[in-house]
Amino acid sequence: MQKVYLDNASATAILPQVLEEMLPYLKGTYGNPQSLHEWGDAAREAVDLARERVAALIGGQPQEIIFTGSGTEANNFAIKGLALAQQAQGKHVVTSAIEHFSALHAAKTLDKWGFEVTEVPVDKYGVVNPADVEASLRKDTVLVSIMHANGEVGTIQPIADIARVVKKTGAIFHTDAIATTGVIPLDVKQLGIDALSLTSTQFYGPKGVGALWVKKGVRIIPLMDGGVQEGGRRPGTENVPAIVGMGRAAELAREQMDSRMAHSTTLRDRLIHGMLSRIEHTILTGHPSQRLPGNASFCVEFIEGESMLMLLSHNGIAVSSGSACTSRALKASHVLIAMGLPHEIAQGSLLFTIGMENTEGDIDYVLETLPPIVDRLRQMSPLYSKYLKGQQGGK
Amino acid sequence: MQKVYLDNASATAILPQVLEEMLPYLKGTYGNPQSLHEWGDAAREAVDLARERVAALIGGQPQEIIFTGSGTEANNFAIKGLALAQQAQGKHVVTSAIEHFSALHAAKTLDKWGFEVTEVPVDKYGVVNPADVEASLRKDTVLVSIMHANGEVGTIQPIADIARVVKKTGAIFHTDAIATTGVIPLDVKQLGIDALSLTSTQFYGPKGVGALWVKKGVRIIPLMDGGVQEGGRRPGTENVPAIVGMGRAAELAREQMDSRMAHSTTLRDRLIHGMLSRIEHTILTGHPSQRLPGNASFCVEFIEGESMLMLLSHNGIAVSSGSACTSRALKASHVLIAMGLPHEIAQGSLLFTIGMENTEGDIDYVLETLPPIVDRLRQMSPLYSKYLKGQQGGK
Repeated sequence: MQKVYLDNASATAILPQVLEEMLPYLKGTYGNPQSLHEWGDAAREAVDLARERVAALIGGQPQEIIFTGSGTEANNFAIKGLALAQQAQGKHVVTSAIEHFSALHAAKTLDKWGFEVTEVPVDKYGVVNPADVEASLRKDTVLVSIMHANGEVGTIQPIADIARVVKKTGAIFHTDAIATTGVIPLDVKQLGIDALSLTSTQFYGPKGVGALWVKKGVRIIPLMDGGVQEGGRRPGTENVPAIVGMGRAAELAREQMDSRMAHSTTLRDRLIHGMLSRIEHTILTGHPSQRLPGNASFCVEFIEGESMLMLLSHNGIAVSSGSACTSRALKASHVLIAMGLPHEIAQGSLLFTIGMENTEGDIDYVLETLPPIVDRLRQMSPLYSKYLKGQQGGK
Repeated sequence: MQKVYLDNASATAILPQVLEEMLPYLKGTYGNPQSLHEWGDAAREAVDLARERVAALIGGQPQEIIFTGSGTEANNFAIKGLALAQQAQGKHVVTSAIEHFSALHAAKTLDKWGFEVTEVPVDKYGVVNPADVEASLRKDTVLVSIMHANGEVGTIQPIADIARVVKKTGAIFHTDAIATTGVIPLDVKQLGIDALSLTSTQFYGPKGVGALWVKKGVRIIPLMDGGVQEGGRRPGTENVPAIVGMGRAAELAREQMDSRMAHSTTLRDRLIHGMLSRIEHTILTGHPSQRLPGNASFCVEFIEGESMLMLLSHNGIAVSSGSACTSRALKASHVLIAMGLPHEIAQGSLLFTIGMENTEGDIDYVLETLPPIVDRLRQMSPLYSKYLKGQQGGK
């Protein structure tokens, strides 16, 4: 059976060149960067090089990069740490309704800590309107956090426009760029932001490492207490092999970005065109053009996403329904609901994320395999029967 | 030049068998355990196996293991999460003066959050007296956290005795067992504890992963917000390769514990005997017998630890002064100060941590190399001149 992996936002292989650079740090060069001897020096130099490479990917300075253990940690650190550091100026925070749970729930925790949180809405494409952000700003707003792109529906936000609005006030602006860093061009200075979360898993680096970029001069309170690593801002022994891998992956992402984007966009558009033309009652979710190059997300009406996932999996095809972090929770996506989709349609969510290794053949296999699955499931669907009866009744 | 690495508490190589088991998850088997397809299934099964292996190492149940990104995170999670979960019962926390900074500073953060923290003292060997813990307990004490062994001076605490005292009350008992798990025998049921922090770096597993064992039924508030991983208690994509490595390392630690302990203890005692007999004015820090098998820690009077580190490093020998996490901060160790050592003596801290790969030859090389270094440094030491003058004056 053909195997087609179209769940690259959930996990990807590490690039061979990345693993190659990590291996010495998993074997002989194992020192602790905090140690005052040559073993420590070698580890520290490796971490410093990775820091430069990650900074270069986003147009920041190396000393502005704080390595974390994951993207989730970077988002928690940013939202809680930036809000707490500025709380003398006010306790109002603005975010959007479609943030990743690591940001959205971190903001909910701030709410428990006495902050007030405003969630700005999104339109039917999942776009945050800068005017809505502007309208939400108050004298006591200290932090605005809006994601750069949503990994579930692919919509890319007008971050530079939002940042311009926020910068009229004294509020700090953070963006969760986990879905975009290393995927599309991005420069922290051009975006005009103060802080940015990223992770290496979206650009073929290792798991278990993330980073937070915080503009020089912006105060942040650590999420964890302990040693003096990362300039006293993030304690715990540096995960040297993973940091090294992230650095190399960042460098490769910068070099190969154009070709990767072109490749993904071609396959994405082939898949979107094929899905919409071959499967009736299918909705493309997210923005039609302002979307991640590898993201093709749909709602297939009258069916549950989980059933499609299972049958696709039986045919060797790996996809998601909703975000990776909630796919096992099987709840309707908060993102789709925020975009105004009714619950029963949101249940039919199907998310394809395309990677470097995918081919036209993969897409064509999906386009052959899925329509009969959808037909079969619809034949068993009470919702579809009801719809058909309605259609006949209308005749 | 001979190379001798005696800084195994700061970092070690990963065992070849551990790396071998990690590699497939760094290459082909890269799925996200949360995904509903075969790639996800393979990753999830690997994480489940690791969970069983880690649980077996400490005598716990697999579902009681929560994987984290580091030991520091496990300690922060335990101390903040357990205290916050029980705060309706009271807001008093007990810890000791010699905890690792990830525990000590987490408790200081609790203090900022309105908790009251009592730090019980230690004796000159760094031992916490269970009677002191008992005396510190109050009706509103909700959490006691005392480390199993101190990585800096090697002292092993009478945790079972302390647990018995704590269990007379309703307080939760957590132990930071980062220095002991996989190093000396340990069983959570025999210890009578409620929660335990561990990391794989102390038993030749990878960096970037830790775990918290929490006894079934004990409530804990997550440190971070996000997805539903780890039973909803610790969000973020599972670091599958590192978790797999930790599992294999746990299994090997269990199998090889006796031989590793015997090996380390022999070399440790050779080093302690040699140091005390060959270098005048040298104090063994920590308990003379209740100590970690690989820990040989000293204060060499009239000299600064940093100078010894540098000269040893020039001779190919890697050691620490104070804990790994603070060695670059170059402050007198809070552990030695809590044990009653004067600042000027604590500055002369020298910490050797012995590992599987060390040999008698390594120890003998240190015992040849260090005495002339100490002589040289003492000749330049104003403190030593003053001491000698005092001696002569006394004649």
